[in-house]
Amino acid sequence: MGANGTRMKPSKSNMSYTYEGADGWRRWRLLRPGRGMYHDVRRRLPYYWSDIKDAFTYRTVASIVRMYFVNLLPAIAYTLDMYRRTGEFFGINEGLFASALAAMVFSILAAQPLTIVGVTGLIALFNYTIYDIIQIYDVSIYPQFMAWVGIWGAIFHWLVSFGNACDYMRYVTDFSSEAFGMYVGIIYIIKGVEELVNEFAQEGRTAGFLATMIAILYFGTVYLLEKLGSSTVWRAGVRGILADYAYLFGTIFWVGFSHIPGNIDMTHIMRLPVTDAFKPTQPRSWLIDFWNLDVKWVFVAIPFGFLIMLLFYYDHNVSSITAQARQFPLKKPGGFHWDFFLLGCTTFVAGILGLPLPNGLVPQAPVHTDSLTIYETELRIIPTTEGEGTEIREPIVKATAVVEQRISHFVMGLALIGTMTGPLLTVLHTMPSALFAGVFFVVGWGSVESNGILQKFVFLQRERRFIQRGDPMFHIRRRKIMLWIALQLAFVFACVAISQTIAAIGFPVLIILMIPARIIFIPRWFTLEELQVLDDFTVTNDVVLASLGGKPALPEETRAEDWGLERQRSESQHGVPRQRVGSIHR
Amino acid sequence: MGANGTRMKPSKSNMSYTYEGADGWRRWRLLRPGRGMYHDVRRRLPYYWSDIKDAFTYRTVASIVRMYFVNLLPAIAYTLDMYRRTGEFFGINEGLFASALAAMVFSILAAQPLTIVGVTGLIALFNYTIYDIIQIYDVSIYPQFMAWVGIWGAIFHWLVSFGNACDYMRYVTDFSSEAFGMYVGIIYIIKGVEELVNEFAQEGRTAGFLATMIAILYFGTVYLLEKLGSSTVWRAGVRGILADYAYLFGTIFWVGFSHIPGNIDMTHIMRLPVTDAFKPTQPRSWLIDFWNLDVKWVFVAIPFGFLIMLLFYYDHNVSSITAQARQFPLKKPGGFHWDFFLLGCTTFVAGILGLPLPNGLVPQAPVHTDSLTIYETELRIIPTTEGEGTEIREPIVKATAVVEQRISHFVMGLALIGTMTGPLLTVLHTMPSALFAGVFFVVGWGSVESNGILQKFVFLQRERRFIQRGDPMFHIRRRKIMLWIALQLAFVFACVAISQTIAAIGFPVLIILMIPARIIFIPRWFTLEELQVLDDFTVTNDVVLASLGGKPALPEETRAEDWGLERQRSESQHGVPRQRVGSIHR
Repeated sequence: MGANGTRMKPSKSNMSYTYEGADGWRRWRLLRPGRGMYHDVRRRLPYYWSDIKDAFTYRTVASIVRMYFVNLLPAIAYTLDMYRRTGEFFGINEGLFASALAAMVFSILAAQPLTIVGVTGLIALFNYTIYDIIQIYDVSIYPQFMAWVGIWGAIFHWLVSFGNACDYMRYVTDFSSEAFGMYVGIIYIIKGVEELVNEFAQEGRTAGFLATMIAILYFGTVYLLEKLGSSTVWRAGVRGILADYAYLFGTIFWVGFSHIPGNIDMTHIMRLPVTDAFKPTQPRSWLIDFWNLDVKWVFVAIPFGFLIMLLFYYDHNVSSITAQARQFPLKKPGGFHWDFFLLGCTTFVAGILGLPLPNGLVPQAPVHTDSLTIYETELRIIPTTEGEGTEIREPIVKATAVVEQRISHFVMGLALIGTMTGPLLTVLHTMPSALFAGVFFVVGWGSVESNGILQKFVFLQRERRFIQRGDPMFHIRRRKIMLWIALQLAFVFACVAISQTIAAIGFPVLIILMIPARIIFIPRWFTLEELQVLDDFTVTNDVVLASLGGKPALPEETRAEDWGLERQRSESQHGVPRQRVGSIHR
Repeated sequence: MGANGTRMKPSKSNMSYTYEGADGWRRWRLLRPGRGMYHDVRRRLPYYWSDIKDAFTYRTVASIVRMYFVNLLPAIAYTLDMYRRTGEFFGINEGLFASALAAMVFSILAAQPLTIVGVTGLIALFNYTIYDIIQIYDVSIYPQFMAWVGIWGAIFHWLVSFGNACDYMRYVTDFSSEAFGMYVGIIYIIKGVEELVNEFAQEGRTAGFLATMIAILYFGTVYLLEKLGSSTVWRAGVRGILADYAYLFGTIFWVGFSHIPGNIDMTHIMRLPVTDAFKPTQPRSWLIDFWNLDVKWVFVAIPFGFLIMLLFYYDHNVSSITAQARQFPLKKPGGFHWDFFLLGCTTFVAGILGLPLPNGLVPQAPVHTDSLTIYETELRIIPTTEGEGTEIREPIVKATAVVEQRISHFVMGLALIGTMTGPLLTVLHTMPSALFAGVFFVVGWGSVESNGILQKFVFLQRERRFIQRGDPMFHIRRRKIMLWIALQLAFVFACVAISQTIAAIGFPVLIILMIPARIIFIPRWFTLEELQVLDDFTVTNDVVLASLGGKPALPEETRAEDWGLERQRSESQHGVPRQRVGSIHR
């Protein structure tokens, strides 16, 4: 049900996908191939018409504009990074094509069209690490090899989706998803710095300093506009505009700034490199001649394809989960199995066309849902016992409804296709590369600042007497909180460290390992009470869990509501925080 | 009484300087020359020994370090500005000499040694405007002419101090002192920008961009450290160190940064220009041959001397008032007449030695008192009616005592003299000029951000339902608040505009005009109730008023406590805000 008030009956199908109570061979997910996908489609299909009809509200327009920028700018930024580090094989045209392809497929066919799919920083890391490896042997086979990585990746995707293996995502807790968010944020900030270092190397000192200045000020602009958007200035409507269009305003202003005649214009800072519209960056046809690859290499591509699948299994599903996170009052069901199957298809197509493989965008996916959410800032009056006129008035933000539909995703995809045409490519060429360093900083810092790890760290820094006594974290031993974030940070830094080496392609293994580590080792060191405060199941929404085979088996008779006590308290006091770009949880 | 607990009896002399109840010729201040000065000395002299004895605490050490930076850096910044705009007549040596002279005289002889006296941005503006005027006729007489301006200025100072005219300062309200603070802040920020523009002009684009970057990041560093210092992280002691040494840390870091080998070091940004130690910048003897000036020009200097006196009358006395503002629990009396007489003496000496004329530093004076204040962050528990564990815990900052003494001012002066020696001048030469643009931004923005005008403006932007109902400003019509700040801003912008022209020397007249304007016109447009919220008497402390002839005649039977209701409420809720550099009120 969208904001327009489509009626909805509790569908029996919503809850009918489960393995609970099943016995014999029926308990084995692998033995019932395609069952999850079937239920996903059956569950979502009845909403298809409302997915179009519900779209005709202003929020959809705001969402399209916001998501266009939030999707396009980072995609270009990562592509720029890949362009330089893969011998200019992946260029802007490939990046745009991959984003547009994903947007078209997922907006039309996905069970959960809220999940924005596109080019991520991690696939950039993946692609240039493979380039570094291939370079050692024979750089000329890179296109064909990447195509086979895509093909094998697609096959593994299909195996996973038919095998109903997405179900295990319901065991993902904040322990791993926060660590993942922190890792992504740090990688992005490093990328931003690299972008600026490159400016110094390519264009010299003057351009380097100007680029650094623009990146810092762009970051400051978008950051402050988004902060203002979630403050209590002006009316809710004006604030909403700031929050919706912070990227737009910041980008237009600083692109304009970079062209001011005089000292700034005369400094030749790097602009976005573009090539002919609709043509691959390299002189090749779109279809890669993947059949011209030595069979030996086809086999070598298998483990790489498997790692791609592992990465996407976590990355795509987590972004889908955060797009449907607990704070959004979603009414329509999602479908993880079906969407992962679709992701296999885009992986296949992108692979043989020589595009960067698109997948769910961790920082941007929840921003899409946020841009479609109708927030109401309500007044919370806390009566004090100090007498009249002394009550405390605080804003409390409530998410009242989400405009759940496919059109915003679809139109954004059309806009991406439009961007691939000659005239708009020329516009892109006016943008300084430095701006993208700024984009990396905004997205990266957003992911770090809102992260539960940093929040707990800040909590530990506060002077204890000013901590509200009702705060559940107050009652947990400080060293336990320290141990908790130390464990998370150990994974984060292991991932960051590995990303700087040629072993970078192994990082998905590390991330996936956090899920069993959380289940097996963590309960030995923390009591259940501590875990209920420190951790939380990332999925709690029933309509989301329906696609994952129902609720996870919880330890010792706890209910889902007994978890995430810290978040629950924060929400009861301050309401739901608006999603800033890059912020993952809370 | 200092923090060390010197006993004090209410002295009869404290209250014996007044004209209330006097009749006949005795009512006329001018007819009783020197009466104010006599009482100032008589009132303060008994504390002289305690002014030395009370100094032996850690706060004095922190104060010396903080004030050394807070005084030195802006003084150098203004001198740099003068250096370029007065044909290199005033240089670093003159600026340091003037600061050291003032510090020595006022720390040893002043009735109120808390008031830091030094080189201000306004005297820089004054000096180069006179240079622009003199240049039209004969630039070679500039030194002698400036000497005469100083001599006449000194004479007018002495007339004012013997005529007991400082008494009128008790009528100064926030209406004019906020406008003045805003004006000073804007001028400083403009100076910072000019400094950077100059870097582009002198050293080219690369240096310009690097300088801009350093200035912005220096501003950010000091600003954030000071904000952290007034937050609730860590323990009160650690926070205190951040607040005390923010300038020190920021300066050391960014000076070091500017010397990093590679791209930064290879970019030749401007360093502070220094000349031989203890010698005037120009090849001249320290004593100006003021007797070699055409008599015609001696007479021309009279109105300029008068304007100097007007400027200092307001600027020096207001800085003295803010150094003894209401939020500081001062126990020792001040003395405005005597200090103004002393200021005449330093004006005379600085004038004939060709130094920039020192006077009270508006942004820095309250910082000195702040650095000597013992703050205690107490816990304020607001019980709510929502049940147990829901009370709200907030910090409330209380100023419990001030270490009132002369030693911090005196040692800081010694440090300034030390800075004039060869080795330390070499250290100064390593500092990039860009840093001083950053200093301008910190001081200027501090003055703007904490200003009552901006605070009221921000209040108007807030969504009304989130404003606490106990807030007195809530009950005033919005258009009246708008009118109030519009009137203040009219004066501010008139002053800023005039400062950009050759008529700049006239700005003291505009500022002084605000005092009668407030008394004559304002009450016609605002009700007494409105004024009691919007305005406040800048001096309310009894020990301070004692030197100004007692309380001002208040309208319609109000008491001093009936004024400044907005401030009173804020203080009762959040306590006294710590003074950041540049912040003037609240």
